[in-house]
Amino acid sequence: MSSQIGNILKVSLFGESHGPAIGAVIDGFPPGTEIDMQKLLAFMKRRAPGRDKTSTPRKESDLPEILSGMSGGVTCGTPIAAVIKNADQRSGDYAKMSAAARPGHADYTGFVRYRGKNDVRGGGHFSARLTAPLTFAGGLCLQYLQSRGIFIGAHLKSVHGEEDSSFPETDLTPQQILAPGEKDFPVIDDSAEERMRAVIEKARRDGDSVGGIVEVAVTGMPAGIGSPIFDTVEGRLSLAYFGIPAVKGVEFGAGFSASQLRGSENNDAYCIGADGSIRTKTNHHGGILGGISSGMPIIARLAFKPTPSIGKEQDTIDFIRREETKISVAGRHDPCVAVRAVPVAEAVTAVVLMDMLMEQEGMLPD
Amino acid sequence: MSSQIGNILKVSLFGESHGPAIGAVIDGFPPGTEIDMQKLLAFMKRRAPGRDKTSTPRKESDLPEILSGMSGGVTCGTPIAAVIKNADQRSGDYAKMSAAARPGHADYTGFVRYRGKNDVRGGGHFSARLTAPLTFAGGLCLQYLQSRGIFIGAHLKSVHGEEDSSFPETDLTPQQILAPGEKDFPVIDDSAEERMRAVIEKARRDGDSVGGIVEVAVTGMPAGIGSPIFDTVEGRLSLAYFGIPAVKGVEFGAGFSASQLRGSENNDAYCIGADGSIRTKTNHHGGILGGISSGMPIIARLAFKPTPSIGKEQDTIDFIRREETKISVAGRHDPCVAVRAVPVAEAVTAVVLMDMLMEQEGMLPD
Amino acid sequence: MSSQIGNILKVSLFGESHGPAIGAVIDGFPPGTEIDMQKLLAFMKRRAPGRDKTSTPRKESDLPEILSGMSGGVTCGTPIAAVIKNADQRSGDYAKMSAAARPGHADYTGFVRYRGKNDVRGGGHFSARLTAPLTFAGGLCLQYLQSRGIFIGAHLKSVHGEEDSSFPETDLTPQQILAPGEKDFPVIDDSAEERMRAVIEKARRDGDSVGGIVEVAVTGMPAGIGSPIFDTVEGRLSLAYFGIPAVKGVEFGAGFSASQLRGSENNDAYCIGADGSIRTKTNHHGGILGGISSGMPIIARLAFKPTPSIGKEQDTIDFIRREETKISVAGRHDPCVAVRAVPVAEAVTAVVLMDMLMEQEGMLPD
Amino acid sequence: MSSQIGNILKVSLFGESHGPAIGAVIDGFPPGTEIDMQKLLAFMKRRAPGRDKTSTPRKESDLPEILSGMSGGVTCGTPIAAVIKNADQRSGDYAKMSAAARPGHADYTGFVRYRGKNDVRGGGHFSARLTAPLTFAGGLCLQYLQSRGIFIGAHLKSVHGEEDSSFPETDLTPQQILAPGEKDFPVIDDSAEERMRAVIEKARRDGDSVGGIVEVAVTGMPAGIGSPIFDTVEGRLSLAYFGIPAVKGVEFGAGFSASQLRGSENNDAYCIGADGSIRTKTNHHGGILGGISSGMPIIARLAFKPTPSIGKEQDTIDFIRREETKISVAGRHDPCVAVRAVPVAEAVTAVVLMDMLMEQEGMLPD
Repeated sequence: MSSQIGNILKVSLFGESHGPAIGAVIDGFPPGTEIDMQKLLAFMKRRAPGRDKTSTPRKESDLPEILSGMSGGVTCGTPIAAVIKNADQRSGDYAKMSAAARPGHADYTGFVRYRGKNDVRGGGHFSARLTAPLTFAGGLCLQYLQSRGIFIGAHLKSVHGEEDSSFPETDLTPQQILAPGEKDFPVIDDSAEERMRAVIEKARRDGDSVGGIVEVAVTGMPAGIGSPIFDTVEGRLSLAYFGIPAVKGVEFGAGFSASQLRGSENNDAYCIGADGSIRTKTNHHGGILGGISSGMPIIARLAFKPTPSIGKEQDTIDFIRREETKISVAGRHDPCVAVRAVPVAEAVTAVVLMDMLMEQEGMLPD
Repeated sequence: MSSQIGNILKVSLFGESHGPAIGAVIDGFPPGTEIDMQKLLAFMKRRAPGRDKTSTPRKESDLPEILSGMSGGVTCGTPIAAVIKNADQRSGDYAKMSAAARPGHADYTGFVRYRGKNDVRGGGHFSARLTAPLTFAGGLCLQYLQSRGIFIGAHLKSVHGEEDSSFPETDLTPQQILAPGEKDFPVIDDSAEERMRAVIEKARRDGDSVGGIVEVAVTGMPAGIGSPIFDTVEGRLSLAYFGIPAVKGVEFGAGFSASQLRGSENNDAYCIGADGSIRTKTNHHGGILGGISSGMPIIARLAFKPTPSIGKEQDTIDFIRREETKISVAGRHDPCVAVRAVPVAEAVTAVVLMDMLMEQEGMLPD
Repeated sequence: MSSQIGNILKVSLFGESHGPAIGAVIDGFPPGTEIDMQKLLAFMKRRAPGRDKTSTPRKESDLPEILSGMSGGVTCGTPIAAVIKNADQRSGDYAKMSAAARPGHADYTGFVRYRGKNDVRGGGHFSARLTAPLTFAGGLCLQYLQSRGIFIGAHLKSVHGEEDSSFPETDLTPQQILAPGEKDFPVIDDSAEERMRAVIEKARRDGDSVGGIVEVAVTGMPAGIGSPIFDTVEGRLSLAYFGIPAVKGVEFGAGFSASQLRGSENNDAYCIGADGSIRTKTNHHGGILGGISSGMPIIARLAFKPTPSIGKEQDTIDFIRREETKISVAGRHDPCVAVRAVPVAEAVTAVVLMDMLMEQEGMLPD
Repeated sequence: MSSQIGNILKVSLFGESHGPAIGAVIDGFPPGTEIDMQKLLAFMKRRAPGRDKTSTPRKESDLPEILSGMSGGVTCGTPIAAVIKNADQRSGDYAKMSAAARPGHADYTGFVRYRGKNDVRGGGHFSARLTAPLTFAGGLCLQYLQSRGIFIGAHLKSVHGEEDSSFPETDLTPQQILAPGEKDFPVIDDSAEERMRAVIEKARRDGDSVGGIVEVAVTGMPAGIGSPIFDTVEGRLSLAYFGIPAVKGVEFGAGFSASQLRGSENNDAYCIGADGSIRTKTNHHGGILGGISSGMPIIARLAFKPTPSIGKEQDTIDFIRREETKISVAGRHDPCVAVRAVPVAEAVTAVVLMDMLMEQEGMLPD
């Protein structure tokens, strides 16, 4: 029953979309890490709304205020707390909630889970807005990991079937990993941007939305991180990936396609790299064997469902009066949540892998 | 760094394939649950080798010896420990390990993780044999959950592309859920058995192997179990699913296919069921919204890679001398691990969902 | 490596004495609990400095700002975050730290633990000021528990050897439990106040300090909470009690004195109470047997060392230059931390017992 | 609700006094540690019954059978499971339980906690017999810690008021720490043995029992282990200490006596040791400041209540028929549990401190 994750590096998220503020507490972050605040804000900006050239006051409100755990831009080793104020403050009295469940949203399940007591405006604690403090936490971890030579990047692998090319599965440079994130639209192949923007725009005009797939890659992760059975790299990452709103599937390496292969096709032959390192010639295993990192790039794919908020009228129920009704969700929404989820996937990957590194290496060296 | 899982109901696995014994400790199981031992053994038998009519002495060794936590066939509420003896005992001195990494196996990653100190014979702690005590633990949970009207079943959704039909996604009876497990070959559509056995047999004759997909369904799970962000039903299940050897992908409901849909196609409209219950007309959400159970059937799919052990010669390396070499894995192996993994997927589902139920309901009523 | 505690009800503290703010996140608090904010603030005020009639601006700064998890004075079930601003804000650049270890403080151990990167002004994260958000969290739990008929109170059992009388060990009314907390000086026997104030005042005049003992009592706790071995009520409470600055000993019931008794003296004979309940005639077991609550009052005692901050010159070392030096700690300090620790002990008791109740009962009823 | 402890190094205990077997699973123990089995058995023998020269068949049954995680006397890094068979096997049907609560025992609280379903013969899971697998786990940790130069020892500080001398609080050699454990009766001052044996023997003849205090000391623990607030060395140790049957109080350094001191008396002045190390001239802080190890010897004291099993007739109740009755506990019992608890206290200390070391240092070097 928890918005907390981590064993040594513990991240705790709080807040509701329309409450006073949202935020994160990061407990166990190693002391002595210098944080480049401009870099951190630039990373958080990648998930902020209105990214494409248009600046909005909402963006301002996404500036994290650091309350503890840092001094002079350096981590103290004590809990790091950051708060992000919400633009529209909660009114003193409790806003009347609608009891018409938006299909695809957590309105009804949240009502049952929290007995109708949770603040539902804008999705409340379920809001994708909670990914803002998550990118703050992940941004800190990304900077630490980069200082260790571990690079994490992601791109929009597909949107409603429109495909981007993939990360090279065996020889992957930090530049290649970071490139998509440096673009306004996080893809590898620029031609994919046009095609994806087209399907997204068409969906928007239709008052509809589309799903997509985000591909994450990690290089520089040492071999030997993770454990079999209940502490696998795949499992630990998935536990957190499914916390990103709209994720309905996760796969590593060849993933689901491996189910259609033969062993002779799927096995990755080993070889000795030019630098004398132990490598595999292919990377269907996605950098993980027996739940443990192999030293090859870690490749994960996250499937995002289409944004449930659509203008079209839908059948639903009033879960208080328990009767059928109709609903159509007004207001501007991202017609494809996967786009802004790209940096969130990077953030989550960083939080989990840093925790797993710390489990094996202890309080990490600065 | 752990072969343990669970928050209230804690399952701890131990053992190596060729050590004296393997086993499980289940801590936190509610007191007063009557266990049908014949039913439990029948369930464990589904994953045991040589299931198709042929009885082997190895099977005998899979009989669990219960050391604690049960009295007169009833759970005590104290830790339940069960041990399964291994047929071939470990010799006193440490068996020399081969340093030629079997592609697709954890030989190399385990060597790095455990610094070459782990017992590697037969895969050691990485062996699929560890799923025997896991099915013991899961079997206990399945019986408790059934007494609550919660049914969990699985079937072989596909093998090397040969498809079985799917569980009905909205109206699913306990009978339909349990049916595949009652067959020698766990499928819904009998015609799938022939096609699947054929591709498996062909792979076996070629000294090769094939992958597959296991589909799990759960009915009777009350709405409101789970939490958003880091305690989602999807995430908790995935953490454990990836502990099943050879799993490389997990999806729920429409899963990856949702990434190709529009919101108007993927959203599940709500309605009032004949019994007055709140339901959805379709079930693309796989019974989970916002990480919380909706009361609709929970549907999960697990992608299994082909068995890495194949007769064909493969390129590999000697990870001690760090030089390239060749290997071909001798001996009989399951040419498709997914088949025997079906009950394991049921067991893991039961362990996780029961733990999540207990988090919400506390020490469950007997 | 954690300022977090709890299994179902998770409390996370953050902040430094001289940072921008301190605070707490309470994750897992049951939805639907009405919080009496005046009562909560009155409780927090009991630990605030300058309690005896004198009002100080510092007190103002101890007003918690609730950022999430509550709506209209009712808990939502989502994480509750509260922030308490610090009066003196941190200056942009890092204040130069003194390397002369104050004897009895965590200056040196904190320096090693955090590699000299932690903010040390005013004790930083080690400051007793962190007990402010802890009393906020505990205050929420106390209100929930009272609504269940569970009452928690504490008093100053002794100060530098000056004794207060004890709580009645078997027949204890809520009024008796709450009485000391309603006084300016938390004792049962008013004559103890004079004697204790005298030794405290004398120590203050001498630029010295004194230690004390706080006794906590709990009534209404149902029997059957807790578990043997690693989940005992004593152990769980102690884990948290030792987090209160200056606590060096914890005992339950007869505690250390039991080591001087015979079994025939220490055993508590059982009887049937007037109301037909199962009770013990004496309560040397302090309401806990085998780590599990017996239904009798839970009695705990916490030993506080004298405030380490004293005016007298002391021998110490400079832990950076690693050479011997002298120090005398200037400024006003509580000459007896035990006094203000009384409500903190109540808060900690509430946090732990509510978590243990939730483990057994699940998400508690509102 | 757990017989498990540990964050990185996880120890799980199972078994009932009269069940088939008791045992432990140690998950996360670092690979490559050579275990001296004779030394381990000798350590376990210290807590076994009938230690003074007389060999009994019961003792044989305390031989641990290692089922996993070790190979050729070296730890593998995978879970180490050990089983200790019980002499008298459980009969198939459930032995009728007595409903007359033995005062001072967990009969009644266990009945409520486990709803009358737990195996109660010989105390069941509450039995001090569970400390046998605990000493196995602790024995492994002690050997690892000694290889790191960390020594843990304990002695019987007092029995029914009869005092032994104390460990030197600042200059403490491994020899001094280990000396009491090498004697038949674990004291520092041999004259204490006579006096203690006398009060114990007198109590035995009276069909009564006595309590005592065990003092634990640790040297070689590096400074900087532990954290403030909820992860203190004191708290973590106490959580586990209270799992040792009959412990009712725990203190560190000056402990409760510090409550009667002034700061000028209790503060430990720092100095530079002959070897240039930072030390304190006294050790009232018991090697822990701010919850973090200071590098000085860690000193803890555990108060044990007298054995509740006494021959004298006592008033009690039948908790099923809920009526008053009488009981006198027959059979031979240790008239002072503290004696055999000395190695158990060492074992628990080792398990906790090794886990805390691993949290800070990661998977420890072999």
